[in-house]
Amino acid sequence: MPTTHVPQCHIPTYDTPRIVLIRSRKVGLINRAVQLAILAYVIGWVFLWEKGYQETDSVVSSVTTKVKGVTVTNTSTLGTRIWDVADYVIPPQEKNAVFIMTNMIFTLNQSQGHCPELPDDNTECNNNSSCVPGYVSTHSNGIQTGACIPYNSSIKTCEVFAWCPVEDDNHIPKPAFLQAAENFTILVKNNIWYPKFNFSKRNILPTFSSTYLKNCIYDAQTDPFCPIFRLGKIVEAAGQNFQEMAVEGGVMGLQINWDCNLDRAASHCVPRYSFRRLDNKDSANTVSPGYNFRFAKYYKESSGIETRTLIKAYGIRLDIIVFGKAGKFDVIPTMINIGSGLALFGVATVLCDIVVLYCMKKRYYYREKKYKYVEDYELVSTSEGRMEAQLFPPLILKQDVQSPYHTQTLYRSCEEGLSSLERLIFTSKLLREALKTILCFLGNHS
Amino acid sequence: MPTTHVPQCHIPTYDTPRIVLIRSRKVGLINRAVQLAILAYVIGWVFLWEKGYQETDSVVSSVTTKVKGVTVTNTSTLGTRIWDVADYVIPPQEKNAVFIMTNMIFTLNQSQGHCPELPDDNTECNNNSSCVPGYVSTHSNGIQTGACIPYNSSIKTCEVFAWCPVEDDNHIPKPAFLQAAENFTILVKNNIWYPKFNFSKRNILPTFSSTYLKNCIYDAQTDPFCPIFRLGKIVEAAGQNFQEMAVEGGVMGLQINWDCNLDRAASHCVPRYSFRRLDNKDSANTVSPGYNFRFAKYYKESSGIETRTLIKAYGIRLDIIVFGKAGKFDVIPTMINIGSGLALFGVATVLCDIVVLYCMKKRYYYREKKYKYVEDYELVSTSEGRMEAQLFPPLILKQDVQSPYHTQTLYRSCEEGLSSLERLIFTSKLLREALKTILCFLGNHS
Amino acid sequence: MPTTHVPQCHIPTYDTPRIVLIRSRKVGLINRAVQLAILAYVIGWVFLWEKGYQETDSVVSSVTTKVKGVTVTNTSTLGTRIWDVADYVIPPQEKNAVFIMTNMIFTLNQSQGHCPELPDDNTECNNNSSCVPGYVSTHSNGIQTGACIPYNSSIKTCEVFAWCPVEDDNHIPKPAFLQAAENFTILVKNNIWYPKFNFSKRNILPTFSSTYLKNCIYDAQTDPFCPIFRLGKIVEAAGQNFQEMAVEGGVMGLQINWDCNLDRAASHCVPRYSFRRLDNKDSANTVSPGYNFRFAKYYKESSGIETRTLIKAYGIRLDIIVFGKAGKFDVIPTMINIGSGLALFGVATVLCDIVVLYCMKKRYYYREKKYKYVEDYELVSTSEGRMEAQLFPPLILKQDVQSPYHTQTLYRSCEEGLSSLERLIFTSKLLREALKTILCFLGNHS
Repeated sequence: MPTTHVPQCHIPTYDTPRIVLIRSRKVGLINRAVQLAILAYVIGWVFLWEKGYQETDSVVSSVTTKVKGVTVTNTSTLGTRIWDVADYVIPPQEKNAVFIMTNMIFTLNQSQGHCPELPDDNTECNNNSSCVPGYVSTHSNGIQTGACIPYNSSIKTCEVFAWCPVEDDNHIPKPAFLQAAENFTILVKNNIWYPKFNFSKRNILPTFSSTYLKNCIYDAQTDPFCPIFRLGKIVEAAGQNFQEMAVEGGVMGLQINWDCNLDRAASHCVPRYSFRRLDNKDSANTVSPGYNFRFAKYYKESSGIETRTLIKAYGIRLDIIVFGKAGKFDVIPTMINIGSGLALFGVATVLCDIVVLYCMKKRYYYREKKYKYVEDYELVSTSEGRMEAQLFPPLILKQDVQSPYHTQTLYRSCEEGLSSLERLIFTSKLLREALKTILCFLGNHS
Repeated sequence: MPTTHVPQCHIPTYDTPRIVLIRSRKVGLINRAVQLAILAYVIGWVFLWEKGYQETDSVVSSVTTKVKGVTVTNTSTLGTRIWDVADYVIPPQEKNAVFIMTNMIFTLNQSQGHCPELPDDNTECNNNSSCVPGYVSTHSNGIQTGACIPYNSSIKTCEVFAWCPVEDDNHIPKPAFLQAAENFTILVKNNIWYPKFNFSKRNILPTFSSTYLKNCIYDAQTDPFCPIFRLGKIVEAAGQNFQEMAVEGGVMGLQINWDCNLDRAASHCVPRYSFRRLDNKDSANTVSPGYNFRFAKYYKESSGIETRTLIKAYGIRLDIIVFGKAGKFDVIPTMINIGSGLALFGVATVLCDIVVLYCMKKRYYYREKKYKYVEDYELVSTSEGRMEAQLFPPLILKQDVQSPYHTQTLYRSCEEGLSSLERLIFTSKLLREALKTILCFLGNHS
Repeated sequence: MPTTHVPQCHIPTYDTPRIVLIRSRKVGLINRAVQLAILAYVIGWVFLWEKGYQETDSVVSSVTTKVKGVTVTNTSTLGTRIWDVADYVIPPQEKNAVFIMTNMIFTLNQSQGHCPELPDDNTECNNNSSCVPGYVSTHSNGIQTGACIPYNSSIKTCEVFAWCPVEDDNHIPKPAFLQAAENFTILVKNNIWYPKFNFSKRNILPTFSSTYLKNCIYDAQTDPFCPIFRLGKIVEAAGQNFQEMAVEGGVMGLQINWDCNLDRAASHCVPRYSFRRLDNKDSANTVSPGYNFRFAKYYKESSGIETRTLIKAYGIRLDIIVFGKAGKFDVIPTMINIGSGLALFGVATVLCDIVVLYCMKKRYYYREKKYKYVEDYELVSTSEGRMEAQLFPPLILKQDVQSPYHTQTLYRSCEEGLSSLERLIFTSKLLREALKTILCFLGNHS
């Protein structure tokens, strides 16, 4: 026959594994049960519950806020005074946040000059020698001049060059100065976008009427989609006491969750609001509890001297935190999950093989059917079954005389087979055999 | 033979499934076609299109902005006035955002005092009895004193304690006060970082010359990488009319997309700019359309009285939204995709098995070759084939007399096999069989 | 036998593939080695290193900052002046960021009026004809009136209507005006939340005592969890020189990494701080190097004229960038990885099959054992082996006379089998065969 280098073309073949069908109620039911469990997991958990067939995207969001409300205060230093939005929202606009001042310490008419420092362990003095000229610490209001001067009739403190008089923030007004802030309302306008799906939506739903929008106040039960929030309700919903929180301030999170299943209609994609206090309420283990910052209003006297009003503003900073994931059917994750789901079915066969081949009375008979033992063809006999004893070595561990066919061989018993079941699930039977092979190989050669 | 507990060491074995190779043009071609389709999906879609071999990371970014531009206005209240950056950018710096005032309502020389409220349905009155002392609503400018005083020659409204005179924002200047804002330019400096790959880049590309940077203006066609944007162009690119938007304000998104394939050179990782209006243009279904906020400049008169200029600022807030994903080759996702791709090949065998075992004329012959039927060894005959009829029960449904070998058995026909094909793909044949087994089991025992 | 349409119920069957067990040291060891490698990859890399058994979530975070420190400056324009937090932090509070002014250019007592423009190439003039009334460029301070007036004794520039006198920012103070900012401290309070696991934590760890918190300063070695940072140290840690950076300003990133393994105790979930300069230090290829912005303080003279102090503020903006991923054991990713890991074991069989069936001397013998060849049953003989030569077509390529059994057939040799090994791993043997089948099919039919 001549050698031809032209590839020969043939009828295409199809190869399919040869299968042993074992008719056994016990193993059949175990097999079906394991397969059902895996199927239930794949269908129920991966696909229905975790929506494994969806591609996901994270939200991109834009937030604007608008606060409304006025209140009046009456104090000896400031007299009767009205407070409106321009007074208590600082800075006037922020991205994804809004600060509402609820309490404050005023220091009026500060100007640059010399005055006594606020008394504390480091600044109280008896004479000039206690004060170091030029000394500044982290908590100083100014730079020490080196003099020791009277702070009030009883205490002397080091003199500082500072904005004078220095702020005394030891006594926080209680109840909070602007305790009426509880009734201020905040309109939150939120626009979200899922770039991967080019899906955008606003938290002002298209079903709202203008009248509803002008009058509604968010309530978890009655108005869960109203974008206007009463400050007091936000704080309460987070399990806090507003009047307590107003004194020292705090950071509140207004969380907007936009988890959306985009396989459904867009109208099902709605925001869910939740509220959380973000700073630590417990003032025991913290520095500078609550939330406050200092700012100043600068004035110029007719004499040309610059003065300022220093305000230590305590208040509630509302962080609008927008998060969420949108899911939409996609081929890739579906295929990944189907693929690995199918692969898991192999586990069912592994488990049932253990039962069939190690635990059943007829195990030797089934082994004979499943396995075909091949050794050097010079030695191989026509009867496959007769070779089995020598050819099933990795599992031979101890004598097992119940076998009607192979009474002289060392076979592993069912209990051992079952005890290794758990390990088999996690590491597959391969690790065990591989390690043993290596150990044997090393043992034989050492 | 003595029982030895020392594990016996043997020549390692290798187990490989036994295969039936069926030489059939029809099935062979179906098999190859299904395999090709799966392979094309795995290679083409998962690897080339979706880059399934890459690990991905989300961008971490930092943005600074700088606005330039001056304009002059001439009004009766303010006279001729120049506006520069310090006047119209409020607050002077923000993270990832910048606000440019385009329109405003001034209320000059406000001071705390008593004055008539702005007339509306709730505040207009005929006499003092219509006004409730201490009354405040969400839209109030101050607290009612209980008096009813003339607002102008024709209307009387309740007197309030407020910053007086109260702001009248019923008439928004049109065209916008700072309509020249269209020509203001914004330099956006953006630095991004992919933490997982420790890759960072700026939107000022290293190929730019200083001269180019000083004179360029972003244009989608001619200068797609210039980081300097003309405000008017941004608004236009989002499909909006600048002069219309300037009147009531609005929120614009400047989106910077940094999708990068880090398997390629870093120079291919460039920003792509796009523009989108983030608030709702349609003022029908919305509250407080556009974008505005109030702030005040505080002054102190020589008499010591504090006055303020209240400004309701309308304008364009530019949110710089940076997003993107970088991908780089990684072993894990590659292996996950290869693994589940390989597992999908099992589908090809399942499909072809259906054709071979249920639809072909020679199906009984092929079944004989593929399956080996095993029952109790006491009963088993030497001829495997003869047991088949009784051992293939789950699929026996109706009589099928065409079989040349098994004329007396009930076999499922090809059409049924094909009609269940779709279900088989999704749930595999296992669900069906499992359910039937359970139903049968229950039926037998009830 | 009567035809019954009631589905017959049978003992459930269990199907398991028939296996050839080949007892061969060579192939057995290859098989075990490949399996071990795959197992090592799955266990070691996917599960231990990459924690493939965990579901992950991205961090949601809230940050507040508080700066402390005072300094004094002494200049001819301002005299001796003290600077405290309210003076140098602008705006007084920001979300996730804080700006600390380190240098500035003051332009005192600006008022709206006419004055000469700052001299540069475009604004210097000899006479009025060089100046265009109403001209404004991007870098203008105001609007040209058309007059050419002396800027100083030697230079004449176009007159502008602007805030006068115009700012001269050609000379940046060096060293920086507030060079003492190096010693300012910043307290960063960070609260994080992993929504998927409902796990929240603060960067002020519960193990801290109040005394420690009041006195500690972050240090990578000695105090890696102290939330108080010295500004100078942050800049140094990023490899920058503070005094250099203070002159022109810059943007620093304070990165807080919250990578947490939530399978371990919550106390192991701690922040890791790192520092990075976010803007470009290299001023060669950039516009407006460093970081600065302009803001103004507005005053009203007793005459009613509004004046302002324009400040061009250079300084360090500290962006607090919080990122991180938390992982927690979850069934889904575990199963996906186990599934695709199991699927990868198929690769071991493919590789070993190549060795056994193409490279070993006894390959024809092993093939006989593994494959069962099926053709038209009319022709099939009882001896399976005899049909092999005609039934193994896709691999028949060239004559191979060493075969003791099949001397007349064309068989593919081992070298070719091995050379295609690499391709086999990636595309599996299916692509090759599929392509060949198509080529053959096309060849036969053309």
